[in-house]
Amino acid sequence: MFRKELKVLDCTIRDGGLINNYQFSKDFVKGVYRTACEAAVDIVELGKKLEESDEYTREKYGPWNFCDDDDLKEVIDSWECEQVPLVAVMYDVGRVDVSRLKPRDQSPSDMIRVACYVHQIDAGLDLVKRCKDLGYETTINVMAASAAIETELVEGLVEINKSPELDYLYLVDSYGAFYSEQVSYYLKLYQKHAPDKELGFHAHNNQQLAFSNTQQAIIDGVNLLDATINGIGRGAGNCNLELLLNFLKNPKFDVRPVYKVIQEQFVPLRDEIEWGFNDIYGISGHLNQHPREAMKVRADPERKERCYDFYLDSLRLDDLGE
Amino acid sequence: MFRKELKVLDCTIRDGGLINNYQFSKDFVKGVYRTACEAAVDIVELGKKLEESDEYTREKYGPWNFCDDDDLKEVIDSWECEQVPLVAVMYDVGRVDVSRLKPRDQSPSDMIRVACYVHQIDAGLDLVKRCKDLGYETTINVMAASAAIETELVEGLVEINKSPELDYLYLVDSYGAFYSEQVSYYLKLYQKHAPDKELGFHAHNNQQLAFSNTQQAIIDGVNLLDATINGIGRGAGNCNLELLLNFLKNPKFDVRPVYKVIQEQFVPLRDEIEWGFNDIYGISGHLNQHPREAMKVRADPERKERCYDFYLDSLRLDDLGE
Repeated sequence: MFRKELKVLDCTIRDGGLINNYQFSKDFVKGVYRTACEAAVDIVELGKKLEESDEYTREKYGPWNFCDDDDLKEVIDSWECEQVPLVAVMYDVGRVDVSRLKPRDQSPSDMIRVACYVHQIDAGLDLVKRCKDLGYETTINVMAASAAIETELVEGLVEINKSPELDYLYLVDSYGAFYSEQVSYYLKLYQKHAPDKELGFHAHNNQQLAFSNTQQAIIDGVNLLDATINGIGRGAGNCNLELLLNFLKNPKFDVRPVYKVIQEQFVPLRDEIEWGFNDIYGISGHLNQHPREAMKVRADPERKERCYDFYLDSLRLDDLGE
Repeated sequence: MFRKELKVLDCTIRDGGLINNYQFSKDFVKGVYRTACEAAVDIVELGKKLEESDEYTREKYGPWNFCDDDDLKEVIDSWECEQVPLVAVMYDVGRVDVSRLKPRDQSPSDMIRVACYVHQIDAGLDLVKRCKDLGYETTINVMAASAAIETELVEGLVEINKSPELDYLYLVDSYGAFYSEQVSYYLKLYQKHAPDKELGFHAHNNQQLAFSNTQQAIIDGVNLLDATINGIGRGAGNCNLELLLNFLKNPKFDVRPVYKVIQEQFVPLRDEIEWGFNDIYGISGHLNQHPREAMKVRADPERKERCYDFYLDSLRLDDLGE
C-alpha cells in the first residue's frame, strides 16, 4: 500500500506510559525519539500534559504525564536529523490549564491532540480552538466510539465538522472491540457527518486486530495512522509500528531503526512491564468492555491466566436482569 | 458474521504437533477432542498419517504423526456428544502408503486432507481420488501459495477443478505473508480457475493477521475455516479458534469450552513449548520466507530476541547478487 498522503504518528511514549505511569527514563524517551527521526515517522507523541499539583506530582505520575518544555527540549535536542518529526502532546479534556500554554513558536511541541469522550466533544472543540489560536496543529480523539450512543456521536461529529480549527478527527477503538467491518461502518459515519475533516485512526490489539484494522482504515481513506514501537500500549497495546512500516510501501520510511530499538531497549523492558495480546484482553475486546477489569485480572498472579473464569465473570457482570 | 454454510475445522493437534513432534499425551488429545465436541466445531483434525518405518518410529515422531486407528478410536470413544465432529487426518503427498488405507466405514476417520506443494498437485489429486473411492471426504491444501509461480499455480487450479473427487480446495498462507488484499487476490484467482470447488482457508499468524485474514476469506466466500485452540501451531501459530467463534454469530457454536481447555491445558503447555506472534516471525512473514530460519532463531537462546540482527541477516540471505 503506497499513498503519499499517509502519515504515521508514533505514540509509543504516550500510550506506553499508561502502563508504567509515565516513568520512562530520559534515555528511553531519547531512544524512541531518535527512532522516530531515523524511521522518518511524521509525528512523535511524547506524553500528556497534566497540571502539576499536590495530588498530581511528577514523582508519582511521571515526567511524561506533564511534558515540561525543558524535558521535551532535552529529548528533541538529543538527536539531529534531516527530517524532523513534529512533536505531539496529548491533552485530556478537563485536566489541563490552557491559560498557561505558550504559543507554538515558543514551545517545543507542534501538535496538540485532544482526547475526549463523546459527551465532552464541545469542551474538546473549545480546547482545540484555543490550541489552534496559539498556532498548534490539532486533533480530536473521540474515545470509546464503540460504546457511544450513535445519535450522540453523530451530533458530536456535526459539531466537529463546523470547527475550522481542527486538523484531524480520530476514530479511536479504545476497547479493541472493532472488526474490520465496524471500522468501515464508523468511518463511513464519520465521513458522512464530518465530511470536511481529514481522519485519523487509533487501534487497540485486544483481538489481534490493531494492525489489520489500521489497514482497513487506510483502505477506507484514513491518512493519519497511530502506531507504537513493538505495539506497546495500555492493555493489549496498539498497532505495531514495525508491522505498519513494513506494510506501507513509501520508501521514505525505514523500519531498521525500529527493529534496532526493539532489540536494544524494548526486549529488556518486556521483563519489567507487560503489553500485548492475551486471552484476557481478547475477551474484554470481544465483549466491548473498558479494559479496566481485564487489566486488574492481568495484574493478579492468581487470576491472570484464568481466561475461562474471566469469561464467565464478565458475562455475569453484564447481567442486569433486564 | 453469520452464514450458515460456514464450517470450522479445528487443526489444533495436527498443526500444534509440528511444534513438539506430535508428542501430545492422550489426555491432552482427548481434551481437545472433547472441546471440539462441546464447542460444536464441524471437523477436528487429530494428526498426520505417516508410514512407520525404522527411520520413522512412533517413539521419535510421536503417535499423532501416525494416527493409528486404535489411537483415534480411543480418543473418539472418550467423549460422547450429540453433534459429533467429523474426524480428519492430514496426508503429505509422497509420505503415505495408500494401499493400506481402509474404507471409511471401517475407519475412525471421515476426512482426508491432502497437503502438497504446487508442483505436487497432480500427485495430490491422485491421492484425493483414491481417498474418495474409499468413501472419505477430501481436501487438497496447496501449501505456500505465496511463493508459487502464478502460471504454475493456475495450471494446478485448472487440474483441481477437473477433479470431481475433491470436496474442498484450500488456500494456505504457509509463510504468514498475506495481507488481506492478497487473500482477496488469491481467492479471486482460485475462484476464476477452479470455479466448481468449495474453498477453505488456512492462515498463519506471523504478522498478527491470521484471524483478520480468515475474516477476509469469509467475506470473499470461503466456507471452511481452519483454526486452532489458543492459536497453537508451527511458528507464529494459526487463527485462534476462540477469537473466530466469537466472530461467527452462529448460535450452534459455544466458545466456553475453548476458554476452559485453554485455562486448564494450554496455559501449562505454554511453559513447555512456544507458539504465537513475535518479532522474529513478523519479519519472516513480511519477507515471505519459509519459517525454517525464524524457528531456528527462536530455538537459540542467544538469538531469539535479536530481531534487528535477524532482519539484517534475512536481507543478506536474500541477496543473490542479481
